[in-house]
Amino acid sequence: MVGSLRIQRPREKGWGSMSLLRSYVSGGWHTPSVEGAPLHDAVTGEEIARISSAGVDMGAALRYGREVGGPALRELTFHQRAQLLKALGLYLKEHKAELYALSARSGATRSDSWIDIDGGFGVLLGYASKAKRELPNDKVYVDGPVEPLGRGGTFVGQHICTPLHGVAVQINAYNFPMWGPLEKFAPAFIAGVPTLIKPASQTAYVTEKMVELMLASGLLPEGSLQLVCGSAGDLLDHLTPQDLVGFTGSASTAQHLRTHQAVIRSSVRFNAEADSLNCSILGPDAVAGTPEFDLFVGQLVAEMTTKAGQKCTAIRRALVPESLMDAVAEATAAKLAEVVIGNPADKSVKMGALAGLEQREEVRRSLKALRENASVVYGDGALSLVDADAERGAFMSPMLLRAAADAVQPHEVEAFGPVSTLMPYTSVDDAVALAARGAGSLVGSIVSADTDFVRDVVIGTAPWHGRLLVLDREDAGESTGHGSPLPMLVHGGPGRAGGGEEMGGMRGVLHHMQRTAVQGSPRALSAITNRWVTGAPRREDAVHPFRKTLAELRLGDTVVAGPREVTLEDIEHFASFTGDTFYAHMDEEAAAANPFFGGRVAHGYLVVSFAAGLFVSPEPGPVLANYGLENLRFVTPTFPGDQLTVTLTVKQITPREDQEYGEVRWDSDVTNQKGESVAKYDVLTLVAKS
Amino acid sequence: MVGSLRIQRPREKGWGSMSLLRSYVSGGWHTPSVEGAPLHDAVTGEEIARISSAGVDMGAALRYGREVGGPALRELTFHQRAQLLKALGLYLKEHKAELYALSARSGATRSDSWIDIDGGFGVLLGYASKAKRELPNDKVYVDGPVEPLGRGGTFVGQHICTPLHGVAVQINAYNFPMWGPLEKFAPAFIAGVPTLIKPASQTAYVTEKMVELMLASGLLPEGSLQLVCGSAGDLLDHLTPQDLVGFTGSASTAQHLRTHQAVIRSSVRFNAEADSLNCSILGPDAVAGTPEFDLFVGQLVAEMTTKAGQKCTAIRRALVPESLMDAVAEATAAKLAEVVIGNPADKSVKMGALAGLEQREEVRRSLKALRENASVVYGDGALSLVDADAERGAFMSPMLLRAAADAVQPHEVEAFGPVSTLMPYTSVDDAVALAARGAGSLVGSIVSADTDFVRDVVIGTAPWHGRLLVLDREDAGESTGHGSPLPMLVHGGPGRAGGGEEMGGMRGVLHHMQRTAVQGSPRALSAITNRWVTGAPRREDAVHPFRKTLAELRLGDTVVAGPREVTLEDIEHFASFTGDTFYAHMDEEAAAANPFFGGRVAHGYLVVSFAAGLFVSPEPGPVLANYGLENLRFVTPTFPGDQLTVTLTVKQITPREDQEYGEVRWDSDVTNQKGESVAKYDVLTLVAKS
Repeated sequence: MVGSLRIQRPREKGWGSMSLLRSYVSGGWHTPSVEGAPLHDAVTGEEIARISSAGVDMGAALRYGREVGGPALRELTFHQRAQLLKALGLYLKEHKAELYALSARSGATRSDSWIDIDGGFGVLLGYASKAKRELPNDKVYVDGPVEPLGRGGTFVGQHICTPLHGVAVQINAYNFPMWGPLEKFAPAFIAGVPTLIKPASQTAYVTEKMVELMLASGLLPEGSLQLVCGSAGDLLDHLTPQDLVGFTGSASTAQHLRTHQAVIRSSVRFNAEADSLNCSILGPDAVAGTPEFDLFVGQLVAEMTTKAGQKCTAIRRALVPESLMDAVAEATAAKLAEVVIGNPADKSVKMGALAGLEQREEVRRSLKALRENASVVYGDGALSLVDADAERGAFMSPMLLRAAADAVQPHEVEAFGPVSTLMPYTSVDDAVALAARGAGSLVGSIVSADTDFVRDVVIGTAPWHGRLLVLDREDAGESTGHGSPLPMLVHGGPGRAGGGEEMGGMRGVLHHMQRTAVQGSPRALSAITNRWVTGAPRREDAVHPFRKTLAELRLGDTVVAGPREVTLEDIEHFASFTGDTFYAHMDEEAAAANPFFGGRVAHGYLVVSFAAGLFVSPEPGPVLANYGLENLRFVTPTFPGDQLTVTLTVKQITPREDQEYGEVRWDSDVTNQKGESVAKYDVLTLVAKS
Repeated sequence: MVGSLRIQRPREKGWGSMSLLRSYVSGGWHTPSVEGAPLHDAVTGEEIARISSAGVDMGAALRYGREVGGPALRELTFHQRAQLLKALGLYLKEHKAELYALSARSGATRSDSWIDIDGGFGVLLGYASKAKRELPNDKVYVDGPVEPLGRGGTFVGQHICTPLHGVAVQINAYNFPMWGPLEKFAPAFIAGVPTLIKPASQTAYVTEKMVELMLASGLLPEGSLQLVCGSAGDLLDHLTPQDLVGFTGSASTAQHLRTHQAVIRSSVRFNAEADSLNCSILGPDAVAGTPEFDLFVGQLVAEMTTKAGQKCTAIRRALVPESLMDAVAEATAAKLAEVVIGNPADKSVKMGALAGLEQREEVRRSLKALRENASVVYGDGALSLVDADAERGAFMSPMLLRAAADAVQPHEVEAFGPVSTLMPYTSVDDAVALAARGAGSLVGSIVSADTDFVRDVVIGTAPWHGRLLVLDREDAGESTGHGSPLPMLVHGGPGRAGGGEEMGGMRGVLHHMQRTAVQGSPRALSAITNRWVTGAPRREDAVHPFRKTLAELRLGDTVVAGPREVTLEDIEHFASFTGDTFYAHMDEEAAAANPFFGGRVAHGYLVVSFAAGLFVSPEPGPVLANYGLENLRFVTPTFPGDQLTVTLTVKQITPREDQEYGEVRWDSDVTNQKGESVAKYDVLTLVAKS
């Protein structure tokens, strides 16, 4: 009822036109002239649409991305791209009803769809806000500190990252037709690299709708997003050294694509995120009755049933202290028995269908292998469905197995559905060794309140994992769970999991850029990086730089102020005023015994306060506030009688796209009468644009 | 004369035993029981040694590294490994005479050997000192900031890096038998990953001696270094997901190894550094008579002749403004004519032999292809040699070619010897496009004093380069040159250059570690990372933490001090005392007009000074000095009448291995009477160990 309404609504809105999925390439929509392969509703078995990439010129699409999309994106700064990404996320959010309707046809419940759809918006918005905070409002990313390369300071190094001049080709899995493309698109877009999405056929109708909306938003620079529905054809043959491939799917397909001759010939950056045999480990402290015991069981059931277990991050191996095996088996079985299975359109349903009958067949084959060395704890009974037909829809019961400690299959066979296996362990080392037998996983979780156990297991298993969740009573309320990759954390894992890394905040952006070590004079480096580098020319003119607006300020603008003597009276006065009577400031004899001072010295805080008094231009003007300091180092002690001079130089200018002001970072160097640096630091200010 | 002495000395010291090179595997030296293949002196053609890996159990060697070397290294902290590396560098330096003697037999001049041998020490010492400065004295590396994952602060994320539990397998090129293995060994060792070196056969006698010395030093943990002389045999078949491969050599071999089934099956981290068609670009400003013109010509000649041009970083394409082609050709030819070629034992010799007759044959073949579309500027005349026989030694003349703008070969054919090609360009875009036709290079250089030109070319060509050198009159005196990778800068390049990245300071260390996103409560994360995380338990006890030694301090030790009221008098007094009379502190009306304050506020410097007065424990004690502040942010303005409280908590403890003190980082949170944070920052102190 609700279900059939959902399905009909899009039909009324011209559903017919969707019967053959289109590709968006080289600046236009391409409708294949062949019949295409049918795609079926996972719940009803009904044909939804047909798919084919026949007639798409893959080489032309990649060229279009490189020649039109890349230059258009590279015209924008990181912050401008972030603004577009935010607007895009908000736009999609407004249109999510259409997406939810389509998503339901893939067998997803409302909350499954939430992960895919709202999770997808979350990546866009998350990247937009993080890019604004963590990247400069510029086109080049400066990576790491300036490296001195000579004693004289005339030759220095700096790493910069620039966008690759190719296309980020995505080859996606069927289980997340929205989140999957978006979590790859967002960092590429911020980096300034155009994307070509190749969704998995089974659920490509969701991705096609999403891309249609994204293009309709009018926000995306021409050529920055393309879509190929259907087979990839000879797409990879056209790769060049500047293109990237991001693959999500099975380990075997990853291996196949990774050895493609064009990938190898051009050293194409190939990132794979493959299903893995993820584990969840229950701590020995978490006996029945503890919150952690319940959290472990609840999470296991959630991971088995969400998306009907079709998540590359789902728990496949549940490692449990031997003595707790019975209790865990019993509690998990009881909770699984409560899971209502059926048509996701029905609100009572907690678990929908697999993506299709083929997928179910595949899971059944894997189950057979797993059961060779395991007993069934739950799932062998009759399947009762709500509002669905077990013959036409790809439904199956969650299956919990229990294997012996020495079983091999759970570490090697993946059933990509609602299937998990309990295994016993006997010690921390045993748990770590069992976890490692997955040969590389996307994620693992440790459920325990014992921080010693947690530390040992995390450090022991970390080399085999891209992500580890520690779940306990403290974080359970806010935990996003074992199965959820987050935009600010890396997603990927070594070995079987593909050896890749996606997202991870700005790490995922840099994946799309070339890191280049640039060596040169400070003057040359300043010109290249748009940051003043120590040793580059300074400019002192009649106008105090605090009197210049953001638009007027230039890198290298400098004020030199001082000298001011620091007297013993100043030190004593500052001590009594602030209460900081540390002996090194107050007691000549004790200070002399200190290994660093050799006598009474001024407070570091006094030095920076006097420096501010020297460089400030007090009248109202463009400089609005000092909002912080960074990298402050007291380099040389200041003794009574020393004369301080401060040199303040504009180091970096970051206009804010959405404000009337921007950030100015100043290099501050306080020197004494011998010319020695006493304190070095960056002063952070907000300065009005005009 | 000098040369023959050099060669004889090792003979007297038992040279005979070196006739069959040995491997060091599974804890012992292995001498093959077969005859082995002969290796020849590049200068005299004389047989130096024989080589074979027959009988080496490759699988056992890798297992030994994993099971003995890995655990031994992981017992040490980063700083302890750095200390060993430093000692190792100094030890090798003491024994360099033996290495120089052997190196000369590869055709290297004294200064060629300096690059290889002293350059190798430089990597060890550079990594040792950088690791001590940039890594914690701990076993886990914490990567990036804590990421808040929930609003309540009970669920946070943090990336950690832990050493891979495998072996770093090196497959090296013949041109740098010392630097090559050491630049890969140093970052692996710091990371805590054992190494297996597989040198190229031609010059393996140098590497064997180096490894013998390294082992004789007694500094290396058992299993942390192994050596296989001869063929790699089935070495790669035994790779697991925790192993790594670092390859240096030709692009075609890189492609072959990268697709090895074990590499693909286990997603083995495979880093390739392949020869590339590096360019050097002369700026249009650098006409004859300018310092940059001379620098360009001098560098081109140096890159052609150093190591007889057998450097993967050598300049293969010299891009010159069309109008300067004749002048550059003439000046370069004149300088090449001055290069004395011959037996490196003779001090007048500036260019020695290629590594062998086969290598020379290979260069000649490539030259033939290059000459199809280019004329010879220099190198076609008779070869005059000092103290050497052109038949027996692998000598050849430097060859400078001149190609038309549309020639294809210079962008595709590499002659791995003293060969370079001049090509004309007409505009910045043209120069950038020509550079990109190398399809990915290790390095490029731009020789120009025009910073506009430099910026455009650097940003334009950066996506195709791992390193770019800007050479001008300012940095020339200190420049290390086009061809020299440095330990603090990345070495590697996209596309044809292999798509890899080595060194780059701590980036190269992290390449050997798995990055894992860890999610959990602040308490759990603190236990795992050995850093106090906001939200983790604090401990206030009777003893002020400033009265505790480094050994007594614990993460979370806290002092809470205050409140102290900030009065209007305090603000005015501070203003007049320091001279910081910024209007926001002095003028109610003007301050009210400021978008951030809404009225007079206290100086940020006043807030942190008062905070120090509150938290300090003034009597002499273990806290020796405050050497800096980091990440200071003024979060909320402080108004007259506000009451400030400071909470100071031990966040990180870093004992120094070679000092009687260590570093303690404190989290400082200054709050007002409403509990709002006013200022947040890290205080950096030095604290005595006892």
